[in-house]
Amino acid sequence: MFVRRNIPWSWTLYYAWPSLLYFLAVDLTVYWQRDRIQQLHLDLPFEPISMMATALAIFLGFKNNEAYGRWWEARKIWGLAVNYSRAWARQVLTLMDSPEAEHVELSEFQKQLIYRHIAFIHALRIFLRSTSSFPQEETADEPVSARNDYRECRPFIDDDEFKQMKRSDNPPEVLMQMQGRGLQQARRRAWVSEYVLIQLDQTLVEFNNVQGRAERIKKTPLPRPYSYFQRVIVHVLGTLLPFGLVANMGWLMVPLSFVVSFVFLALDLIGSRTEDPFENRVDDTPLSAISRTIERNMREALGEKDLPAPLEPERGVLL
Amino acid sequence: MFVRRNIPWSWTLYYAWPSLLYFLAVDLTVYWQRDRIQQLHLDLPFEPISMMATALAIFLGFKNNEAYGRWWEARKIWGLAVNYSRAWARQVLTLMDSPEAEHVELSEFQKQLIYRHIAFIHALRIFLRSTSSFPQEETADEPVSARNDYRECRPFIDDDEFKQMKRSDNPPEVLMQMQGRGLQQARRRAWVSEYVLIQLDQTLVEFNNVQGRAERIKKTPLPRPYSYFQRVIVHVLGTLLPFGLVANMGWLMVPLSFVVSFVFLALDLIGSRTEDPFENRVDDTPLSAISRTIERNMREALGEKDLPAPLEPERGVLL
Amino acid sequence: MFVRRNIPWSWTLYYAWPSLLYFLAVDLTVYWQRDRIQQLHLDLPFEPISMMATALAIFLGFKNNEAYGRWWEARKIWGLAVNYSRAWARQVLTLMDSPEAEHVELSEFQKQLIYRHIAFIHALRIFLRSTSSFPQEETADEPVSARNDYRECRPFIDDDEFKQMKRSDNPPEVLMQMQGRGLQQARRRAWVSEYVLIQLDQTLVEFNNVQGRAERIKKTPLPRPYSYFQRVIVHVLGTLLPFGLVANMGWLMVPLSFVVSFVFLALDLIGSRTEDPFENRVDDTPLSAISRTIERNMREALGEKDLPAPLEPERGVLL
Amino acid sequence: MFVRRNIPWSWTLYYAWPSLLYFLAVDLTVYWQRDRIQQLHLDLPFEPISMMATALAIFLGFKNNEAYGRWWEARKIWGLAVNYSRAWARQVLTLMDSPEAEHVELSEFQKQLIYRHIAFIHALRIFLRSTSSFPQEETADEPVSARNDYRECRPFIDDDEFKQMKRSDNPPEVLMQMQGRGLQQARRRAWVSEYVLIQLDQTLVEFNNVQGRAERIKKTPLPRPYSYFQRVIVHVLGTLLPFGLVANMGWLMVPLSFVVSFVFLALDLIGSRTEDPFENRVDDTPLSAISRTIERNMREALGEKDLPAPLEPERGVLL
Amino acid sequence: MFVRRNIPWSWTLYYAWPSLLYFLAVDLTVYWQRDRIQQLHLDLPFEPISMMATALAIFLGFKNNEAYGRWWEARKIWGLAVNYSRAWARQVLTLMDSPEAEHVELSEFQKQLIYRHIAFIHALRIFLRSTSSFPQEETADEPVSARNDYRECRPFIDDDEFKQMKRSDNPPEVLMQMQGRGLQQARRRAWVSEYVLIQLDQTLVEFNNVQGRAERIKKTPLPRPYSYFQRVIVHVLGTLLPFGLVANMGWLMVPLSFVVSFVFLALDLIGSRTEDPFENRVDDTPLSAISRTIERNMREALGEKDLPAPLEPERGVLL
Repeated sequence: MFVRRNIPWSWTLYYAWPSLLYFLAVDLTVYWQRDRIQQLHLDLPFEPISMMATALAIFLGFKNNEAYGRWWEARKIWGLAVNYSRAWARQVLTLMDSPEAEHVELSEFQKQLIYRHIAFIHALRIFLRSTSSFPQEETADEPVSARNDYRECRPFIDDDEFKQMKRSDNPPEVLMQMQGRGLQQARRRAWVSEYVLIQLDQTLVEFNNVQGRAERIKKTPLPRPYSYFQRVIVHVLGTLLPFGLVANMGWLMVPLSFVVSFVFLALDLIGSRTEDPFENRVDDTPLSAISRTIERNMREALGEKDLPAPLEPERGVLL
Repeated sequence: MFVRRNIPWSWTLYYAWPSLLYFLAVDLTVYWQRDRIQQLHLDLPFEPISMMATALAIFLGFKNNEAYGRWWEARKIWGLAVNYSRAWARQVLTLMDSPEAEHVELSEFQKQLIYRHIAFIHALRIFLRSTSSFPQEETADEPVSARNDYRECRPFIDDDEFKQMKRSDNPPEVLMQMQGRGLQQARRRAWVSEYVLIQLDQTLVEFNNVQGRAERIKKTPLPRPYSYFQRVIVHVLGTLLPFGLVANMGWLMVPLSFVVSFVFLALDLIGSRTEDPFENRVDDTPLSAISRTIERNMREALGEKDLPAPLEPERGVLL
Repeated sequence: MFVRRNIPWSWTLYYAWPSLLYFLAVDLTVYWQRDRIQQLHLDLPFEPISMMATALAIFLGFKNNEAYGRWWEARKIWGLAVNYSRAWARQVLTLMDSPEAEHVELSEFQKQLIYRHIAFIHALRIFLRSTSSFPQEETADEPVSARNDYRECRPFIDDDEFKQMKRSDNPPEVLMQMQGRGLQQARRRAWVSEYVLIQLDQTLVEFNNVQGRAERIKKTPLPRPYSYFQRVIVHVLGTLLPFGLVANMGWLMVPLSFVVSFVFLALDLIGSRTEDPFENRVDDTPLSAISRTIERNMREALGEKDLPAPLEPERGVLL
Repeated sequence: MFVRRNIPWSWTLYYAWPSLLYFLAVDLTVYWQRDRIQQLHLDLPFEPISMMATALAIFLGFKNNEAYGRWWEARKIWGLAVNYSRAWARQVLTLMDSPEAEHVELSEFQKQLIYRHIAFIHALRIFLRSTSSFPQEETADEPVSARNDYRECRPFIDDDEFKQMKRSDNPPEVLMQMQGRGLQQARRRAWVSEYVLIQLDQTLVEFNNVQGRAERIKKTPLPRPYSYFQRVIVHVLGTLLPFGLVANMGWLMVPLSFVVSFVFLALDLIGSRTEDPFENRVDDTPLSAISRTIERNMREALGEKDLPAPLEPERGVLL
Repeated sequence: MFVRRNIPWSWTLYYAWPSLLYFLAVDLTVYWQRDRIQQLHLDLPFEPISMMATALAIFLGFKNNEAYGRWWEARKIWGLAVNYSRAWARQVLTLMDSPEAEHVELSEFQKQLIYRHIAFIHALRIFLRSTSSFPQEETADEPVSARNDYRECRPFIDDDEFKQMKRSDNPPEVLMQMQGRGLQQARRRAWVSEYVLIQLDQTLVEFNNVQGRAERIKKTPLPRPYSYFQRVIVHVLGTLLPFGLVANMGWLMVPLSFVVSFVFLALDLIGSRTEDPFENRVDDTPLSAISRTIERNMREALGEKDLPAPLEPERGVLL
């Protein structure tokens, strides 16, 4: 996620240069060949181009709307993860009870439930970011990226659990099953009544929802035809524009046509970059920062003092 | 669901060729008859055409919005099916309990509840995809399609249940009733308290909602007048365009008019293809892949090792 | 609800003919008086008309959006009725229990609760469709319409209940009160625990919501000024158009002006016809079909074999 | 709320006349001074005006959307009040129980809970309509208005409660607190179990939400800059229009410019009139009619026969 | 939050002057150099500029929509804080009970739970407003601002709690943990049953949601590229406009170009000012006023008479 208000032009060029080069080439070619074009009557009236541009603008508006909707829903989902994580910590610490004699054991058990939850959050982040779902916008390496390695979960669970989790192709789901079995044990030890058990299970259902909703966005791209045809139409428009301007203008045609093409391209690119929020890219929802926040909140609730520092933006990007 | 970023042009032509052929015919006819058209003053001013195109673009935007809304809601519904299926498996396995002596029986019973749930998911998919609800966009056979046969439910339920399910015209609903009667038996065996019984019933209510919401989308098309008049207006526009261009342009009129018509047609077609997400077509919500995921998750929760492989896209399409 | 993909032109004319006749009259008059118009300088520049049309198109887009929103919410509400009806049947049949001796009595009682629910659904449909709320789009009789008579509820409740229901001016609400009293009796007979009683009451609250939301749409039209001024502006536009075209065109002005006016009129009419979904008209949400589905599901859950057939579309319309 | 389909033109003028007069004055002045204007080159090209109008139309669309959203949310909130009021009556009457000896006392107590709820509904309506929150659209007195006086609550509560309620500056909130204390007494008398107590408290939470959501709309206007700048731009547009038309047209410029200005003004006014739904104006959400409906439903549930008549529209307006 | 209907022009200039100055400079320069411009053929055709403006208007519409959505969601979140605070007060006061002997202690404890909630509300407001999250729109000091100092929480909690809260970098979260531990004590004293305990914990979960959702808006800006490129395009448009008008107009070009540029700039600025609602600026959601309302409601529910006065707008702004 960009946090700077200004996007450096170098980054814009980084993503847009092939299309921009193409537009420039067309514009210059048309300008250099303007005599031949007028002779061959290859110049176009501007109205139909303008009409197409209006339709395109409306559909780019639609695309940006939906892309932003996906990005914002992704952020909402992780916001729910924050809220219910805090509730989970409070519930685990205040709704369970035991006879005096088992207090130490219970404390240990509560810490285990909360630590395993931290592992779940990290695992979910890594699961979302490291899986390659479907072909993405093709770009070279991102200027900034985050580390995503299941070993980050290691400190929060024991060896057996870590092995079991690594074996599965859906590690966070495996951790959720462990949490369920954990609660079942607590019930057998009578640390929770059946009523409290159900309540805690309901909070786990919320995490099922958090995971499932995030997976839905990860695994279901914005319908490809919407993206694809808009990209095509932007390039068609950029190709026709100089032909529409060549009749009435001198060399100014080149920068004007280029700027207008760039406006439409920028609007298309912004949508394409926002539509997939879990790809370890600079436009991502800041999963690393959020999962760090959750880790901090959990450990603070356990009374720990030595918390990891919150993540800071790097080169204006928070990941 | 397309997963490739690029839609092959052959597929676009596959769906659009009758209209494209019509546009080409009109464009060429107008071009060949341009002398007669100008003589008879059949050429049109461009402004009213442009005005109509603006209105059309706005309404195509509306249609695409709603069509996408239906498609995305379909995906959300099946996302809920994933989330609550995982919760169902955890709840069945951790909230039920029995005296030591009945542990084997209980295990068997739990497996039955989870297997019958897999059958429900497959039955719901097949029910949605194999029912012919209302007349669809007429196209020849789809390039890629999925197998949808109630026999896929057979391995997960016993003979009686399968027969009973096949007799009904709403098989998933019959399976839900069986789940309800199953829970009633568990209550009589005292494997669940009344409180847990209600909790599990609430999860079944979620599946009632999943099924009912999917049926709503299946059985209620986007209001036909919206689709119909937009298709008509696209063709009216494609017909008027060459008359609006014939006065000022040479042969370039033909490709220009064709391209602009194609842009509007493409936007209309994208909507029409997305609006019905349960028709066993290449634009479908990927029900087969999702129900496979659920089956895998359920069986993994039961501790099975020999899971069926996840579905892979075929020719860039995941069904 | 139309289910055919094509709307017959005769039906379009049926609703639109007065406005179309008016447009035609204006277009022809302007054409026949074109000499006098040009002499008197009554011809108009096209730009301001085009500007007005753009604004109009945006507002028609808004209206169609909201009208569709109302129609789709109506469908969602009845979808909830389907989902919770199925849940109600399952809950009534599986969450109640009695000593062996009262099994027959209990069965009878369960059937009564489910039958009274069928009566509620039919009564709600009839209540919505037979009440005349506020002045509607004035049209002659609809080409297709459904029977809506409270006597359809008669087979599902006893004489006393039917009389009581007929006396009230809100029959479905009266049936809901009876369901509440029914549950109270079951509690006194100890067929349900207090916990189950509350659970069943919660399902009744869902039906309160279904009824109240449907009444909200029925009794609160889309704010009249939105509809009214858009209709006025469509006619103003249709009146100005021929004056804007008369200067540059010959007889082609008449069909062109007529077609463009028709496009805007069609978009306005589509909205107006969709905005009120409970009026026993061809564009209605298909309440008759949905309540038949619920009746079938309820009776199938009771194990009945002799179910009424699902409703079929008549002349392409499902009501 | 208007219920007539046609808005009388006199009412439109009633709200719009100062702006309309201004537009007319500008148009006439420009027409009378057209020679001088052309001499001084004060005539404007139409394209930039048209460009501004397109932007304005898009933003008026946004404003109407949000204004309608507020109005419709207001109606939804009061719809929830209807639904949960019915549920409240049913729950109070069927979920409470007492030994035989206290039946009369219990009945009296139930009636008190339901009557106090009627008082709450009326108090909420009056609270919303009689408070002057923030400066409104300035108009003279409304053609139709409703009576809003806390004395209407008097018949439903006793003297002490009425005095206490009058003292507070948030009377409905005070009544909610009384309902809470009422339930506490019922618990002490053992008329409700703790479980039922919580259930009834949950219904009170719904009323907290109804009140709080209505207060939110009442106390938070649509952000002023949105409204204000749109109104300014409409007037700027109406001022520039005649200068844009003066070069090419004769006297027809005056009505044409006036009509186009009126179209934009109407769209702005519709939004402004809908955005605040609780101001005792003709465009209000019909609180009086809805609270009458609730009163009728409550008293019918108590078995009363002598119900007040439903409210009827007055001069086409339901308040 | 502005409550006046008119925004003083001085404030508009206050935020917009650098861009306005730039537009004026460009317009004047182009006007003074018009001979040279026409000689060098630096004048531009208007159509491509108009086309760009249409696209820009659509995207500014999108931005305003999302910015308003954030602002309104912020207000909704704080509306929920109001609703659940009232419910919290009622629940704390009516759902807890104790033996006669502990009544004084219980009363004291209830007051403590409610006072600590007031502290939570103030702490949340201050946390949101005093944290500097990400770079904001750069402006000089705001004309009106509110005091935000954690010492305002001091009167509602004891010394230890205040210290603990000040130590943390998320004070409201710390207060929520204290509330949880408070409820645990009440359970140990048997003032609440386990069932009531869970119910009160559920209300705390709502406050977790209120805090988490507010933090989400605070910490996640509207994606920067959306804001940034729109601001850039507005300035590109304002730069090209005079070149597009210079050919056909005299000195009127300067004010016309300036006005049109201003319209687009205003629409951009409105969005930018609304998008971040928790920055202690004049456009903020009125947190100070809302938290004062909550404090008043809480203390009134405790029966206190000496309530702080509601906040009044200052210079037309409510903070």
